[in-house]
Amino acid sequence: MTPIRALLFDVFGTVVDWRSTIIAEGNDLNRRKSLSVDWAEFADRWRAMYQPAMERVRSGEREWTILDVLHRESLEALLPEFGLEGFDEAERDHLNRVWHRLRPWPDAVDGLLRMKAGHVIATCSTGNVSLIVNLAKHSGLPWDMVLGAEVTRHYKPLPEAYLESARLLGLTPDACYMVAAHNSDLVAAGSLGFATAFVPRPSEYGPSQDFDIEAENPYTFVAEDFRDLAGQLEARA
Amino acid sequence: MTPIRALLFDVFGTVVDWRSTIIAEGNDLNRRKSLSVDWAEFADRWRAMYQPAMERVRSGEREWTILDVLHRESLEALLPEFGLEGFDEAERDHLNRVWHRLRPWPDAVDGLLRMKAGHVIATCSTGNVSLIVNLAKHSGLPWDMVLGAEVTRHYKPLPEAYLESARLLGLTPDACYMVAAHNSDLVAAGSLGFATAFVPRPSEYGPSQDFDIEAENPYTFVAEDFRDLAGQLEARA
Repeated sequence: MTPIRALLFDVFGTVVDWRSTIIAEGNDLNRRKSLSVDWAEFADRWRAMYQPAMERVRSGEREWTILDVLHRESLEALLPEFGLEGFDEAERDHLNRVWHRLRPWPDAVDGLLRMKAGHVIATCSTGNVSLIVNLAKHSGLPWDMVLGAEVTRHYKPLPEAYLESARLLGLTPDACYMVAAHNSDLVAAGSLGFATAFVPRPSEYGPSQDFDIEAENPYTFVAEDFRDLAGQLEARA
Repeated sequence: MTPIRALLFDVFGTVVDWRSTIIAEGNDLNRRKSLSVDWAEFADRWRAMYQPAMERVRSGEREWTILDVLHRESLEALLPEFGLEGFDEAERDHLNRVWHRLRPWPDAVDGLLRMKAGHVIATCSTGNVSLIVNLAKHSGLPWDMVLGAEVTRHYKPLPEAYLESARLLGLTPDACYMVAAHNSDLVAAGSLGFATAFVPRPSEYGPSQDFDIEAENPYTFVAEDFRDLAGQLEARA
């Protein structure tokens, strides 16, 4: 077996908790602006627009467009539905950049620091470079490199997003793990020859989440959280 | 004045000491293989082939080619001149990857850690991604992001190498410093609107270096080393 040299991480949901951060920032807005928006509903609606927006880019219907722009377009559509059409440009921009301020899951930074000692740790996310870099600075995520969508100009699960990320590290897929909380991401990477690690985040989509609770396929590793994954990698080394 | 959000660093010569590392590894080879190569001469000859090799790519005479490949081609030409044509593939590959193992100047890691606290710190180098990532892992260089040649597919001093690096961070040039030990690099970046910081490395090319000893233009900052630059940035904040 090829020694694993790099760990490539999905970010939204796997490393950071987008839903609870949007709810927390939204509830602050409710208090400051005397609003009564249901921010859980808002977060779920915003996230539901994410895959369709990327699919237009993946399919070639639309030219390459970074996620910050897709998020903003979705936000513009959502604001009137929640009675927030009065938000000015600065407020819209700040709210759109909540994706640059997402909180990591409690185990994420500790686990990443441990995994960084023996591996290259890089993102393989749909997020654009500035989003992932700002998120790293905001939350202390110690990436060696930001790969994935913008540097490859392809959104996962298209093969180029994974293969070009490995190639930029000078590695073949079998020298890389893909780490994700989503079975579909690991199926796509695994089919290209990547090793795979599943770390479930069963509350990513809220208390009634009924998918991606368990590993649905045989992966190289299944871990409870990033500390557990770090421990399994250390035991294997 | 726009607050400076990111510091973009030249790497070879500015952050790491390529010449002394090649000499040290070469002298080890002399001892282990009973050779008597002048590795200072070897290092200088190898480096002298660097700009002409990149110029063929810059000019469009040659399609995009990463620096590892250019270094290897130069190495192949040099080995017979130094009586080293007997090196096998593994030895050639290892020697070529000395550029992934260059030693940082003594102030570099400390200074970078201090500068990282208040800024995005990223490379804007001619090195390809895997070279810069491996170098960072080898020497503890705490980059937030690897930008420059490979992700922009342009070699400095072409404008795209600088402008696209800033754009990937979501920043305008005036929100970025270019940090380099080379006047030509800062002139190129400065002409595009980047703030500039000159950190001389007067022994980069050995004891008889007679260029890039002093700042030849008015730069935003001139610093003795990375600790001094960190201090100047902290005083400004």
